[in-house]
Amino acid sequence: MKVEDASLMTPAAWRERFRTGNWHRPTAGLALGYAQANLVILQRELAYDFLLFCQRNPKPCPILEVTDIGCFEPKLVARGADLRTDLPKYRIFRNGQLVDEPSDIRSYWQDDFVSFLLGCSFTFEGALQAAGIEVRHITQNRNVPMYITNRECQKAGVMQGPLVVSMRPVPASNLVKVVQITSRFPAVHGAPVHIGDPQALGIVDLALPDMGESVDVKAGEIPVFWACGCTSQAVVMAVKPELVITHAPGFMFITDLSDQGLAAF
Amino acid sequence: MKVEDASLMTPAAWRERFRTGNWHRPTAGLALGYAQANLVILQRELAYDFLLFCQRNPKPCPILEVTDIGCFEPKLVARGADLRTDLPKYRIFRNGQLVDEPSDIRSYWQDDFVSFLLGCSFTFEGALQAAGIEVRHITQNRNVPMYITNRECQKAGVMQGPLVVSMRPVPASNLVKVVQITSRFPAVHGAPVHIGDPQALGIVDLALPDMGESVDVKAGEIPVFWACGCTSQAVVMAVKPELVITHAPGFMFITDLSDQGLAAF
Repeated sequence: MKVEDASLMTPAAWRERFRTGNWHRPTAGLALGYAQANLVILQRELAYDFLLFCQRNPKPCPILEVTDIGCFEPKLVARGADLRTDLPKYRIFRNGQLVDEPSDIRSYWQDDFVSFLLGCSFTFEGALQAAGIEVRHITQNRNVPMYITNRECQKAGVMQGPLVVSMRPVPASNLVKVVQITSRFPAVHGAPVHIGDPQALGIVDLALPDMGESVDVKAGEIPVFWACGCTSQAVVMAVKPELVITHAPGFMFITDLSDQGLAAF
Repeated sequence: MKVEDASLMTPAAWRERFRTGNWHRPTAGLALGYAQANLVILQRELAYDFLLFCQRNPKPCPILEVTDIGCFEPKLVARGADLRTDLPKYRIFRNGQLVDEPSDIRSYWQDDFVSFLLGCSFTFEGALQAAGIEVRHITQNRNVPMYITNRECQKAGVMQGPLVVSMRPVPASNLVKVVQITSRFPAVHGAPVHIGDPQALGIVDLALPDMGESVDVKAGEIPVFWACGCTSQAVVMAVKPELVITHAPGFMFITDLSDQGLAAF
């Protein structure tokens, strides 16, 4: 497929393509303008604690949709889609251990599954770029640097753990604009949780992220930290549930929601 | 107690006073500047469906806090408070029927109770008044008019029902400001759900509200409709749960959250 064709494909067309199994690359840059989502599938017995954890910690865990029990169609964000087949790659965790990375989870599906779709920072990064603000890890073609902080999330039942943040360096002259733009997108982590001194979050060395890759911070740039979706995955895995299914990192679910439709106003 | 003393009382002091049982009037106007909340107490077996209903319908059901199972302290919005005693009046419903209106629910408390505190429109009405915008039902010293609409909420498990709205008439020249101000308070119903023609919501006659009292709509004024907290109570009662406890209408829980602290940014 030529790049110019790909840029015209709708979210539904992409999901159809993933369903056929012949796509093996991450989803970044596909269906530009449409929100992509993190996927966490849990058994019903853990769903209440996880839903409450997300409610209490909306910045790291912004919910776009929670499906009905046993239902694999995300009716609110992508009517007609099938969460068992419409992502290009999944991860299967048994008792907290990664056991498989299939492109189809129909053989794993259970009637007591509840699927959580959580907002992804691709949306606000698109808004930043549209405003002419460089997003360093995209420029450097790296994964965003992520750090485990010294801030505990609000606990909910068995779900607990530290806040994980992502970091993007911003020239001081753009700080106000960056806060304003990302504040408009509470459904995708929203405003930063911290600006400046990494040590205030318990981060010793920006060059040594806990996940992802480090990026250059140039003279005159301030590190800006956002709540990160990895928080919820870390919290779930710590419980070592019998069975959990997630998207594979970078292989997201593409929704029918437009990025701009997610703006708070 | 003199009025000038009352206006200086903190939320904690008011809760203490309600706890002693010698306060028998609604809470409107008390602890000005602090958010008041609707209370819905359910048994654990219904809590997941109700939490999911609120998540899917955040405009009528904006959650300020969900307590841990069996816990009567709302740790996030009023540390040290006791939800069994710190409201001036409660309502007890058995199988959907009102059976009691006590000022203390300690004798009704169960270890499987989950308490939901939901945002209340007092907060955004205060913000409107602070901006010099008249709130008609307050001027007329009436209850706000509420209407059952033809819009179905997003269903969640056994919880389903129509959206209930409140109406405030606004001069056309103030419409923009009213949208802007209330948009800043998503935790207390946020922006209007509809401006203008009542029939678009299936409302036949503004003078005949389904709940509350009608108010005057003057020439040049446009009816503006907000999602209303009554939505969630109607939805819960339709299920006829074995036991549900709520605040008595107008007798709210006073939180330690400042109204301005609830502003989205």
